[in-house]
Amino acid sequence: MNQMQSPDLVTCDVTDGVATLSLGGGAAHALSMAMIKDLHRMLDVLATDDAVRVVVLTGPGHIFCAGHDIKEIARHRADHDSGRAFLTGLFEACGDMMLALAELPKPTIAMVDGIATAAGLQLVASCDLAFASPRATVCLPGVTNGGFCTTPAVAVSRNVGPKHLMELTLSGTPMDAGWAQSAGLFNRICPAETLARQTTGFATTLATCNPGPIAKGKAALHQHRDLPLRDAYALATPVMIDHFMDPGRLATEAAKAAAKASKA
Amino acid sequence: MNQMQSPDLVTCDVTDGVATLSLGGGAAHALSMAMIKDLHRMLDVLATDDAVRVVVLTGPGHIFCAGHDIKEIARHRADHDSGRAFLTGLFEACGDMMLALAELPKPTIAMVDGIATAAGLQLVASCDLAFASPRATVCLPGVTNGGFCTTPAVAVSRNVGPKHLMELTLSGTPMDAGWAQSAGLFNRICPAETLARQTTGFATTLATCNPGPIAKGKAALHQHRDLPLRDAYALATPVMIDHFMDPGRLATEAAKAAAKASKA
Amino acid sequence: MNQMQSPDLVTCDVTDGVATLSLGGGAAHALSMAMIKDLHRMLDVLATDDAVRVVVLTGPGHIFCAGHDIKEIARHRADHDSGRAFLTGLFEACGDMMLALAELPKPTIAMVDGIATAAGLQLVASCDLAFASPRATVCLPGVTNGGFCTTPAVAVSRNVGPKHLMELTLSGTPMDAGWAQSAGLFNRICPAETLARQTTGFATTLATCNPGPIAKGKAALHQHRDLPLRDAYALATPVMIDHFMDPGRLATEAAKAAAKASKA
Repeated sequence: MNQMQSPDLVTCDVTDGVATLSLGGGAAHALSMAMIKDLHRMLDVLATDDAVRVVVLTGPGHIFCAGHDIKEIARHRADHDSGRAFLTGLFEACGDMMLALAELPKPTIAMVDGIATAAGLQLVASCDLAFASPRATVCLPGVTNGGFCTTPAVAVSRNVGPKHLMELTLSGTPMDAGWAQSAGLFNRICPAETLARQTTGFATTLATCNPGPIAKGKAALHQHRDLPLRDAYALATPVMIDHFMDPGRLATEAAKAAAKASKA
Repeated sequence: MNQMQSPDLVTCDVTDGVATLSLGGGAAHALSMAMIKDLHRMLDVLATDDAVRVVVLTGPGHIFCAGHDIKEIARHRADHDSGRAFLTGLFEACGDMMLALAELPKPTIAMVDGIATAAGLQLVASCDLAFASPRATVCLPGVTNGGFCTTPAVAVSRNVGPKHLMELTLSGTPMDAGWAQSAGLFNRICPAETLARQTTGFATTLATCNPGPIAKGKAALHQHRDLPLRDAYALATPVMIDHFMDPGRLATEAAKAAAKASKA
Repeated sequence: MNQMQSPDLVTCDVTDGVATLSLGGGAAHALSMAMIKDLHRMLDVLATDDAVRVVVLTGPGHIFCAGHDIKEIARHRADHDSGRAFLTGLFEACGDMMLALAELPKPTIAMVDGIATAAGLQLVASCDLAFASPRATVCLPGVTNGGFCTTPAVAVSRNVGPKHLMELTLSGTPMDAGWAQSAGLFNRICPAETLARQTTGFATTLATCNPGPIAKGKAALHQHRDLPLRDAYALATPVMIDHFMDPGRLATEAAKAAAKASKA
């Protein structure tokens, strides 16, 4: 086991090829500027660390992540520009981090055992998978604060249909785990007491898989899903052929053939 | 309370910031050329009426809207061109109206207490939200009349996946409210006797929210969902920053801070 | 009844305007190079055969289609280039066939009474509709073989949301029929003993519908769903007008009017 820590912000534990990022920074795990930068920095480290094959993102306790740090924003209202410069830096840093998460060349799993609100839900939507407990909720509360969750909606709209998205953005109220699953935000709902075990189990198995094709297949998916069907196949076909020529794939085939031969 | 009426066609009632548009024009609430133009004209008025914050669209009785006016089309078959010129004007006017509805800078809610067929379902799909009763049904009947619901499918395909869309277009038969909800066309199914109350309640609460960010957030969503993820963030981020600098947002923050201070 | 046969590969039965393509080639109905080419050739024939209005695709027994022919690929590992040239030809031929299936100017229905794996699931996703039995399963197993189902994901990602897609690609395990239906891959789940009857019944009714508007409407859908809403309407509106001027449509209208007049 290997530990990298940013005390009070993001904690990273790496076990059996699975990096578990735990959001700290107080009970709400709010995405302060420091938290966003710490998370982005960690993602960059994990992206190139060959010992890490899968990333699990979680917020301990009954809040996964409550979104941006409202108190930090409130403090910057006293700036000469009422906070515009700070907010500009904040949302640019946040968008860059969310892109880094979405484009991480390794599978990512949000483990959601509580409230995922605003940019917190954006984190969930930016991961490849989301495993949740029955007490998890999702919320885009912008309208209740005189705003609108426009940047969270970028990620969320790529997970759910427009009617579900507008329910979130226009109601501003928390929706339960069952709703989130049927909307397309959560893959699985596990009992709270087994959520960590089930998520880690899935991740640990996945961490044994050949990483090259996963990285290239995930990148291809991000590119081809915005293309017309014919162009999508033109992009995906050479990637698929490369998967079959990957050394890890060839080794897997050889091992299976040898196992079969030794049985015969 | 304020009433604007187009007798026999679209009726508009404005209460507490909520405009309720009721389709008239006979029991089927069919989208005749006059109905389309009246609805489009009303939408244009509501778009710029500051007293209106939310628009509810409904068809009273057991038909929400049965689609185009088949009798009107039949009459134009006697034209020298078998109706081509009329149909051209009709579908261009219909598409323009549907675009105006989809792009209205205010939240729109379809309240569906009955049959939504062809262009009637297109209306539902073009609204941000749809609240329905258990007796609501959805149908794209084109194939049963020797045609195909190609223009309704533009709006419907942006709400549902391709398998659901093809079930509608190729079966040509009505699907029930539960199917419509699971397909992504309806947000909520409410008992028929409380549908109006629940819809109006939701709309009235939403009408108290700060309208600027809602309008800009909705417009951004229409633009960013067709873009690759990186471009979507580049578009959405400045809009999000603007939400935080909106005078209504600043007033909300100040009021919350004052409430907190007076408690302390 | 009319029979066209490619013994051991794809069998085609045409009855009442419905062509039923049955995958042969052994119990797994694997997509060998020969199978892909035979299926593509058949699709090209059916595309222009006026006696065929609807195409049903099925694999008899408990496997719908197990994907590519792993034994055939294994044999080509002995080639001087470890099979790269063969794989290139294979995946290009496969993509071309899948495009021909997706773009067939007639409705297509996958009848799935068993396992649909990898390129087998890609076939299901490339059809307009999928009717399945409770024992049908879906699987993208690439990661379990050191690869990644990148080309199947092209078709599957156009049926399901990203969370569902990543569950398939990253778990590599079979998901049951209920999951596949809620994810958007299956339209209907019918008892195994009535699946063929229900599918054929639906197809036979559909085969009586006017084919021109169906072909043009389906082609328009493939084009407009990748466009911004305004451009989508600009593309779809002239197609819709053409549907109303189609001779089959005019005949349907005239027949209905005559029936009504004779009653009066």
